Amino acid sequence: MNMLGVFCVRACSGLVGFRIATHVRSLHSFAGITVAQIDEEVAKLLQLKARLGGDDGKHQFVLKTAKGTRDYNPKQMAIREKVFKTIISCFKRHGAETIDTPVFELKETLTGKYGEDSKLIYDLKDQGGELLSLRYDLTVPFARYLAMNKITNIKRYHIAKVYRRDNPAMTRGRYREFYQCDFDIAGQYDGMIPDAECLKIVYEILSELNLGDFRIKVNDRRILDGMFAVCGVPDDKFRTICSTVDKLDKMSWEDVKKEMVNEKGLSEEAADQIGEYVSMQGGMDLAERLLQDQKMSQSKQACAGLSDIKLLFSYLQLFQVTDKVVFDLSLARGLDYYTGIIYEAVLTQAGVAPVPAEAQNGAPAEESVSVGSVAGGGRYDGLVGMFDPKGRKVPCVGVSIGIERIFSIMEQKAEASAEKVRTTEVQIMVASAQKNLLEERLKLVTELWNAGIKAEVMYKKNPKLLSQLQHCEESGIPLVAILGEQELKDGVVKLRVVATREEVDISRADLIGEIRRRTSEA
Amino acid sequence: MNMLGVFCVRACSGLVGFRIATHVRSLHSFAGITVAQIDEEVAKLLQLKARLGGDDGKHQFVLKTAKGTRDYNPKQMAIREKVFKTIISCFKRHGAETIDTPVFELKETLTGKYGEDSKLIYDLKDQGGELLSLRYDLTVPFARYLAMNKITNIKRYHIAKVYRRDNPAMTRGRYREFYQCDFDIAGQYDGMIPDAECLKIVYEILSELNLGDFRIKVNDRRILDGMFAVCGVPDDKFRTICSTVDKLDKMSWEDVKKEMVNEKGLSEEAADQIGEYVSMQGGMDLAERLLQDQKMSQSKQACAGLSDIKLLFSYLQLFQVTDKVVFDLSLARGLDYYTGIIYEAVLTQAGVAPVPAEAQNGAPAEESVSVGSVAGGGRYDGLVGMFDPKGRKVPCVGVSIGIERIFSIMEQKAEASAEKVRTTEVQIMVASAQKNLLEERLKLVTELWNAGIKAEVMYKKNPKLLSQLQHCEESGIPLVAILGEQELKDGVVKLRVVATREEVDISRADLIGEIRRRTSEA
Repeated sequence: MNMLGVFCVRACSGLVGFRIATHVRSLHSFAGITVAQIDEEVAKLLQLKARLGGDDGKHQFVLKTAKGTRDYNPKQMAIREKVFKTIISCFKRHGAETIDTPVFELKETLTGKYGEDSKLIYDLKDQGGELLSLRYDLTVPFARYLAMNKITNIKRYHIAKVYRRDNPAMTRGRYREFYQCDFDIAGQYDGMIPDAECLKIVYEILSELNLGDFRIKVNDRRILDGMFAVCGVPDDKFRTICSTVDKLDKMSWEDVKKEMVNEKGLSEEAADQIGEYVSMQGGMDLAERLLQDQKMSQSKQACAGLSDIKLLFSYLQLFQVTDKVVFDLSLARGLDYYTGIIYEAVLTQAGVAPVPAEAQNGAPAEESVSVGSVAGGGRYDGLVGMFDPKGRKVPCVGVSIGIERIFSIMEQKAEASAEKVRTTEVQIMVASAQKNLLEERLKLVTELWNAGIKAEVMYKKNPKLLSQLQHCEESGIPLVAILGEQELKDGVVKLRVVATREEVDISRADLIGEIRRRTSEA
Repeated sequence: MNMLGVFCVRACSGLVGFRIATHVRSLHSFAGITVAQIDEEVAKLLQLKARLGGDDGKHQFVLKTAKGTRDYNPKQMAIREKVFKTIISCFKRHGAETIDTPVFELKETLTGKYGEDSKLIYDLKDQGGELLSLRYDLTVPFARYLAMNKITNIKRYHIAKVYRRDNPAMTRGRYREFYQCDFDIAGQYDGMIPDAECLKIVYEILSELNLGDFRIKVNDRRILDGMFAVCGVPDDKFRTICSTVDKLDKMSWEDVKKEMVNEKGLSEEAADQIGEYVSMQGGMDLAERLLQDQKMSQSKQACAGLSDIKLLFSYLQLFQVTDKVVFDLSLARGLDYYTGIIYEAVLTQAGVAPVPAEAQNGAPAEESVSVGSVAGGGRYDGLVGMFDPKGRKVPCVGVSIGIERIFSIMEQKAEASAEKVRTTEVQIMVASAQKNLLEERLKLVTELWNAGIKAEVMYKKNPKLLSQLQHCEESGIPLVAILGEQELKDGVVKLRVVATREEVDISRADLIGEIRRRTSEA
């Protein structure tokens, strides 16, 4: 510790050196210091040392990605592409277009849209010019796009990365840079038809990705607000009580009640009334029962929400998805901008990397979704109007697929399975057993490329046959075209099937057809 | 002007108000003020006004994207996807894997890699934590990835956005946020084989995209340096003379010479000698001639480069691409990190949105490529070693496809052509001619979705048949399934072909097969 302190002070000059010295001194004077704290401080100093230059005075790079971010290696990319393909083909099946927006927006575009979570927005340095921030989600840029282009109806998907200066928990699939995968329907339409289609889409995607059993919880912002009103929650406490209700998926009712009463100052009586409602789950029948409920029926808002839930379920029946959808009064998604129906899909099977409860402490509302949450969304009829100079509203409903969670699950699955993930699509390797055949190999691979065959050749003048075959085994290339003096003389190629080691001579004229035949079977 | 000044000063408080007042005053006191300047100042003030709040005191958003960035609308996305598909399938045909890296890197990762252009890097605000910058290209993150993961050979492509605080010239396809589309081969291989494959890839992509005729210019950093040495350019002027040579594609030799002599202080004699060389173009023959050239052959560096050019052309012959490749001694790409072969592809046909010469003033070297430049790259054997703690080198060669320029050309083509760009892939619209058939429409569209058919239904209880058909015309949906009381009774659907208005009754059992049959033809 001491030695390091001395080194750093020596290595640094002026203000920086002074700051480190102070730093180290304050460490020493601290009585109850723990080993973990020392380790942390040492790590910080070493990092600083690396930044300032190593022992030899040469600048040393810290070889890492920014905190909370990661590279995707080829295997992860292969999985990512597979997942995207499934999701995009579902979006396209439902007639969606796609758009893209810049990764940064004017800072003011994001201001006032995310409540408390605004502190998690990444700002760009003021380098002279506009004040910019990295996008926090895809919904606000979408609303800005609609207002800016005066678009009043569109069905679009958008898959892109968003940025949050959150406490990363990367082992649990929580990053500062992560994908969002959004499908939204904007437009003034008859009630609940687009809303029902969003749920149909979630149902299709989760079924096709084969992630195990799932459930889609549905509720409505108006039912929540109505419920709070009739239970005697003061108006100014709706939002904060709502965020406590949101914790029911990872806290017991007792603890939630305690928080309401002790921390948020709600009366015990009001809390108990809420407790009764939020334990309710059902389908269309529950909505009907609550419409008759003496208390609930006093709230016009709640009744409007309940009627819509009924209508929604009637469409969900036609869409054949009611087996997985449940009306759940405890569902309370955090984002400010929801105005109507809200929903969230959770995986219900064990063994899908559940998120430990303590990991959720201090997490922002939208992210702190329940164990195994893989999709969520709702209706936000007011957001576009916030951008329109005249406040013209464009009703919107949408869903966001929790793609990072899904990647994690798929990666775990791939690792558990014996099957190898291929990272290229190469169909054939052009190889030779003898020396001095580079030209012939390049000629043949050109023929194959020109015919649209995915082919590779080793970048060596005289590679060993064994190393060429090993490369095929490792990267899953199914076929090898082997050239030798004899084959060239005979006008053939020895076609080898890597898996079976079967070898057969094919005439050069038939080769392309034969490769196509053999690889289209796979 | 005055009124505006008064308004702004009244509307603003404290420091900001003071700054505006000063601003307006300095304008007034300026004698030779032009209308354009006034307009510009008014625009600035109005923007400031909008930021501070409108007349009614309510906050007004500036509805725009950040300077130099743009949204992609669905039509642009459709074109973008088509271009990407062609390029990616070429990369995959050549056996490439793909990776992804974060949009921001530690600031120090980018430091010292881009020479003067470093001033164009976007930094993130220091919000406590690491100092971060947006990536400036994909090559440096790739090198960081290789060093960090100790990867010594890989063939990968990476398509992603990069960021440069440049003067945007958006009408000419120059943005601050733009795609790069890179293919690189890293590894210690026998000379010029991977280099030749990069050129083969450029050839294939430009041919397949059908952008008109093109040429690929090739040169070598070592030939340039050797040429400068034998022409008597002092060592410390290589880089700056090189960047003047780079301007030959948009300036006459006379002007280039003037810059060398008058601005850069080169002797007239040296300049004239350079002038002789840089006018040379050819193929393998030119490389052979220069190897015999009395002056050039004195430079070991130049000879190494010339031998490699010879070898390269022998492989390019095998790859069948020599008809478009030319060895051009005037090619001098700007980036610091190139160590060997460099190349650049240009479109040679008229009418491909040439860049006016004046637009290039002050543009950074790499971007200021010649009229119609659509791809470029080269060998950079030293970059990975800059990241490795022990300086271990990983030789690399790669190519970057100028995708934004290609998008612009494709967009212009699409606009000029009569053919409509479809932004969705919907195959059929489920419609009805009568009222109260929403349920039946939803049932049928569910059947279609469940069978994997891309289908749409209007989100109205009782849409007019005409508006349903109009929607099909507008968005290019080829088929309509029309439901009416009679069809339901008969167990059929009226299948309408939008283009021909032909209508035929199809039994419900045969419908899916019939749709597949009719849409697979297209």
